[in-house]
Amino acid sequence: MKRLLLTASLLGVAPALADEGMWTYNNFPSATVKAKYGFEPSQDWLDTVRLSSARFGYGCSASFVSADGLVMTNHHCARGCIQQLSTAKKDLIANGFYAKTPAEELQCPALEINQLQEITDVTEQLNTATRGLTGKAYADSLKAEMAKLEKACTTNDAVRCDVVTLYQGGRYNLYKYQRFQDARLVFAPEHAIAFFGGDPDNFEFPRYDLDVAFVRVYGKDGKPARPSHYFKWSEHGAKEGELTFISGHPGKTSRGLTISQLEFLRDVSLPRHLFRLSELRGLVTEYQNRGAEQKRTSNNLLFGVENSLKANKGKLEQLADKNFFAQKLAAEQELRSKVNADPKMKAKYGMAWDEIARAQQTHRNILKEYEAQEGGPSSQLFSLARTLVRAAEELPKPDAERLRGFNDASLPTLKLQTMSKAPIYPELEVAQLTFSLTKMREDLGPDHPFVKKVLGKESPRTLATRVVQGSKLADLKVREQLFSGGKAAIAASKDPMIQLALLVDPDARAIRTRYETEVEAVIRKNSELVAQARFDIYGTKLYPDATGTLRLSFGAVKGYPEDGKQVAPFTFMSGTFEHATGEEPFALPKSWLAAQKQLSPNTPMNFVTTNDIIGGNSGSPVINQNAEIVGLVFDGNIQSLGGDYGYDETANRAVSIHSDALIEALQKVYKADRIVQELRPGTASTGKGGSGPQ
Amino acid sequence: MKRLLLTASLLGVAPALADEGMWTYNNFPSATVKAKYGFEPSQDWLDTVRLSSARFGYGCSASFVSADGLVMTNHHCARGCIQQLSTAKKDLIANGFYAKTPAEELQCPALEINQLQEITDVTEQLNTATRGLTGKAYADSLKAEMAKLEKACTTNDAVRCDVVTLYQGGRYNLYKYQRFQDARLVFAPEHAIAFFGGDPDNFEFPRYDLDVAFVRVYGKDGKPARPSHYFKWSEHGAKEGELTFISGHPGKTSRGLTISQLEFLRDVSLPRHLFRLSELRGLVTEYQNRGAEQKRTSNNLLFGVENSLKANKGKLEQLADKNFFAQKLAAEQELRSKVNADPKMKAKYGMAWDEIARAQQTHRNILKEYEAQEGGPSSQLFSLARTLVRAAEELPKPDAERLRGFNDASLPTLKLQTMSKAPIYPELEVAQLTFSLTKMREDLGPDHPFVKKVLGKESPRTLATRVVQGSKLADLKVREQLFSGGKAAIAASKDPMIQLALLVDPDARAIRTRYETEVEAVIRKNSELVAQARFDIYGTKLYPDATGTLRLSFGAVKGYPEDGKQVAPFTFMSGTFEHATGEEPFALPKSWLAAQKQLSPNTPMNFVTTNDIIGGNSGSPVINQNAEIVGLVFDGNIQSLGGDYGYDETANRAVSIHSDALIEALQKVYKADRIVQELRPGTASTGKGGSGPQ
Repeated sequence: MKRLLLTASLLGVAPALADEGMWTYNNFPSATVKAKYGFEPSQDWLDTVRLSSARFGYGCSASFVSADGLVMTNHHCARGCIQQLSTAKKDLIANGFYAKTPAEELQCPALEINQLQEITDVTEQLNTATRGLTGKAYADSLKAEMAKLEKACTTNDAVRCDVVTLYQGGRYNLYKYQRFQDARLVFAPEHAIAFFGGDPDNFEFPRYDLDVAFVRVYGKDGKPARPSHYFKWSEHGAKEGELTFISGHPGKTSRGLTISQLEFLRDVSLPRHLFRLSELRGLVTEYQNRGAEQKRTSNNLLFGVENSLKANKGKLEQLADKNFFAQKLAAEQELRSKVNADPKMKAKYGMAWDEIARAQQTHRNILKEYEAQEGGPSSQLFSLARTLVRAAEELPKPDAERLRGFNDASLPTLKLQTMSKAPIYPELEVAQLTFSLTKMREDLGPDHPFVKKVLGKESPRTLATRVVQGSKLADLKVREQLFSGGKAAIAASKDPMIQLALLVDPDARAIRTRYETEVEAVIRKNSELVAQARFDIYGTKLYPDATGTLRLSFGAVKGYPEDGKQVAPFTFMSGTFEHATGEEPFALPKSWLAAQKQLSPNTPMNFVTTNDIIGGNSGSPVINQNAEIVGLVFDGNIQSLGGDYGYDETANRAVSIHSDALIEALQKVYKADRIVQELRPGTASTGKGGSGPQ
Repeated sequence: MKRLLLTASLLGVAPALADEGMWTYNNFPSATVKAKYGFEPSQDWLDTVRLSSARFGYGCSASFVSADGLVMTNHHCARGCIQQLSTAKKDLIANGFYAKTPAEELQCPALEINQLQEITDVTEQLNTATRGLTGKAYADSLKAEMAKLEKACTTNDAVRCDVVTLYQGGRYNLYKYQRFQDARLVFAPEHAIAFFGGDPDNFEFPRYDLDVAFVRVYGKDGKPARPSHYFKWSEHGAKEGELTFISGHPGKTSRGLTISQLEFLRDVSLPRHLFRLSELRGLVTEYQNRGAEQKRTSNNLLFGVENSLKANKGKLEQLADKNFFAQKLAAEQELRSKVNADPKMKAKYGMAWDEIARAQQTHRNILKEYEAQEGGPSSQLFSLARTLVRAAEELPKPDAERLRGFNDASLPTLKLQTMSKAPIYPELEVAQLTFSLTKMREDLGPDHPFVKKVLGKESPRTLATRVVQGSKLADLKVREQLFSGGKAAIAASKDPMIQLALLVDPDARAIRTRYETEVEAVIRKNSELVAQARFDIYGTKLYPDATGTLRLSFGAVKGYPEDGKQVAPFTFMSGTFEHATGEEPFALPKSWLAAQKQLSPNTPMNFVTTNDIIGGNSGSPVINQNAEIVGLVFDGNIQSLGGDYGYDETANRAVSIHSDALIEALQKVYKADRIVQELRPGTASTGKGGSGPQ
């Protein structure tokens, strides 16, 4: 696998003419785009694109694509909802879904969609609140000030406000969103084509996937919402070499981290995470053999585990690359020597790297306890129990003193998640809880006081079985009673999952406080200094690391070299059929086999662009300079997995579905004329009526 | 976890007075032992100990403990045999086994026990044969000369001869063994006490295990063999601080490797191996839920996977330790600068490290193909098929030209393994084969020509199911016919597993040749130079890295510091009962619960010594200076897992069962008077007759 070499971001300087950067909307390098591609996005253009973009759930991107609130994203972004709407008899993941009429659109149990309205710089407020403070005082003040700013901004339930930490603390921005909490599933193809090639082809290119889903946002009046802006559809997609923009929510990059932080990732955190994911993958793979229903109900978990596993392996390989790491080290040494060469800068910033290193050492020391206690057992029922236990404890406190996530500004999201109608599968819960309790014992050892307290004389499986089977938290009414009943209701509850959450909570809070005070606060405070040093030395035309918030990247449709050959930028529908073997994950759904003759074999299927993206960008629209949809991002190539730590224009690629393939499939495979009409008003109907996936 | 610091071995110099070293019997530092402990082993003492020691199967150690061929080893060393002798109705792993009379002793299906008779230095012969050669010519000549020496030494089937590569090629010794191929199970306790604490307590201390088994070697006349030497039993075990020796077969250490080799392990090979083991662990853990019989038949696999996983995680943590690695680097730099300071040495040795680094790079490049092709699908049936396919191809060739393992000198072992009566479990075979075919596709990608050739249009599971269910290789007669029928029989075979092995073999051989020529030969040749440079500079009183051959280590009964506390060197029988929860893996067997009142609570159960050991030493006798048994090695503490790369006397410990605990349990729990009488002739009988494990 080709690994990336020297990149601008490694040196801490602004990328010159490379297609690098996940840019914030308030610091977009329009002049660079103009210089390289001859098009300069105006403020108006940027505003339109921003308002046509959407955040989808927690960890995905999307776009508004019609005047009537139609939202386009990936199938793998919507699969939580699709799965939750499925039953043993009606498996929408396997068979797909198409609402032929508005009335057939199905409400997602716990899906929130956000549209970014406004960005305000609040750096000064946060810095004032924390000036001169360290440790717990620093962490508490920061938390309190964030809560205050968010609460003041949240004028009603349809508004969501988040303070966003940029440049590892170099800047704080307040992001104000329009919040949609009623989203309904309109269309999803069969899993077999949405994820054709499965895990073996994931993060690979050439690819042949139709990883798309459509939902519609509704207002409180139960009618389709009409977003202020939406993207129009391009007539012919994008040609090779054409300028493309991707507007979405890249989740997390680590390009600005210091060497001690990268070492922690490389030597401790990533390997641990990968061992755990690998084991869980083996477990769930075999769990699927328990039966058809167990397979169905664990498919999402397996998908998530495998996706994360492959992505994180790519990250670890990047960090294990000696040459790459040496470059990172050299860049840090250069920055530090520039800081040290100036007495004023030295006094202000000089110790920041060592302080971060010290905090990382503390992090190493408490990591296993943190993960076992505050990370907590992984089970939906346990998560619900913990949220209920903590809500009872936190909500009576003044807003500024609560744990993050329990502030007034967060309540709509908290309620949506806690009162979700999504099904819970007890058998899978037992398996997951057994696994995480076993890991807890393995990490801390059977003689650790916390392990003894949690397990007593029970084995992980015995305990897991008892608390899952005895819990009534799957019942929405029980959760509502516990939520509204507060501390008294929690204290009186005999629910064994609530009791487990209560048992664990004091240790979890203690280790969380230690982490926030001794690790997070130190890193945040000193990262702020490192960021300021970079601004002082390299200027402010830098993009911040990704933080799950809206960013805009630019690039072009372009192939790349691999193993001495050039990979072409497009695949075609004909290739989809050529790659089918009839066996999972290379088996096409019946609908595609039936429609093969109608489909134009030369329709571009998937394509790659040089846009700088990362996980979280899934579901992002790819647009041309007219702000028209030319594609839908669903992946990055394997080379881009190192993108967490840098960007290499020669080989890092975003992988998208071509806009023509979307229309072709909607029309000819799924006869989804209603959607096509919405996307491209005036498109001729196939005249055959909708049939949808079989 | 405390990690080891500077050790003599890191510097390439002979350890001064530390208890470091897995010494060969022809280079034992008796003077060092005398200086530190006041006892100097004589040549006669060394010969007696060597001849009373035994190699057990492939990967374990043992000792002769009676005049009538009784052999003592660990339960986990004999568990292959115990499992093979079990059935769904008669589970000897769960319930234990005791042959009350000689007639009840059960023959192990494929167990070989070796007693080391003689060591001859053949360095000059090998060096002469390979002088001036490189690449394929070097590899071929080395292989041919080894085969020649081994064949000349093997005067009959009861003799086994192996050329052993020491100091990474700095020395070659010919080891001549007495070979025992008829070994019968005499005693095994229940798994629950043999592995009390299970994986959570594995490699931990304090421990409370009775990880012992006894077998007896028989001659060709069907009567118990009478070994020339055996260990007597000590009356009281060893006291704190007392000198102890451990004679056994440590499997592999990597203390003499160069930095590029260690980097390969740290960055590539160990993480890959751990990801795979982790996934397999998850898979087998969940496979055990398929049913009681599936649990029984997969227990050994799970044990092996978990044991290997924990051991290798410890190794990776050691290599990921920055300070440790910096010391290794400094030691190499010191050696290289001494070499470079002397023009003659520089000319002779100077390039060796770079050549090894280049070979490691080649290794990285071909690793995935090597593992998929020559590593091959992991399944017992596939292994049998490959052996049969290769035997047919190799045996007609002149001895010197055959693949290693198919030489005349190896035939008795080859036949024992190929014609083993051990049961094969098709359901487990399908699961394992599916897993390894899936990994093959994942590693090489679905479009790799080898993957396409192997899978065709089948999925891993479809293929695995077809070839396992269609194969007749579980039938011993079928294997005998294919073995004796040679190439014609193989070519005519319709057995799908044979056909799969035939399909894979050309690629496997090609990559094996590349590996042997471009990696192994280069590393071997240059490692020889590194070793010579060490001898020239630091002298020859160095111990070689472990190679699975007989070594002797010395040390003393001694606790160690951990997390600021001192861990005492002994545990006692009372602690065994205190740690029982009644739930696996902390549930005691009924026999122990029933005998609790008879057992003396103050009997030492397990204990630790400073002896330098590693995996493969399992089953080694711990002896005092009178060459009497004082214990039985079954583990190392968690700190010792880094022992692959160095030794730290402050915390590395061998973990053993105390000799008194063995007698106490045999007498009072198992009423195994026949064994006790053999071990300690004249010991008073309990007078109650043998009952054995329940």
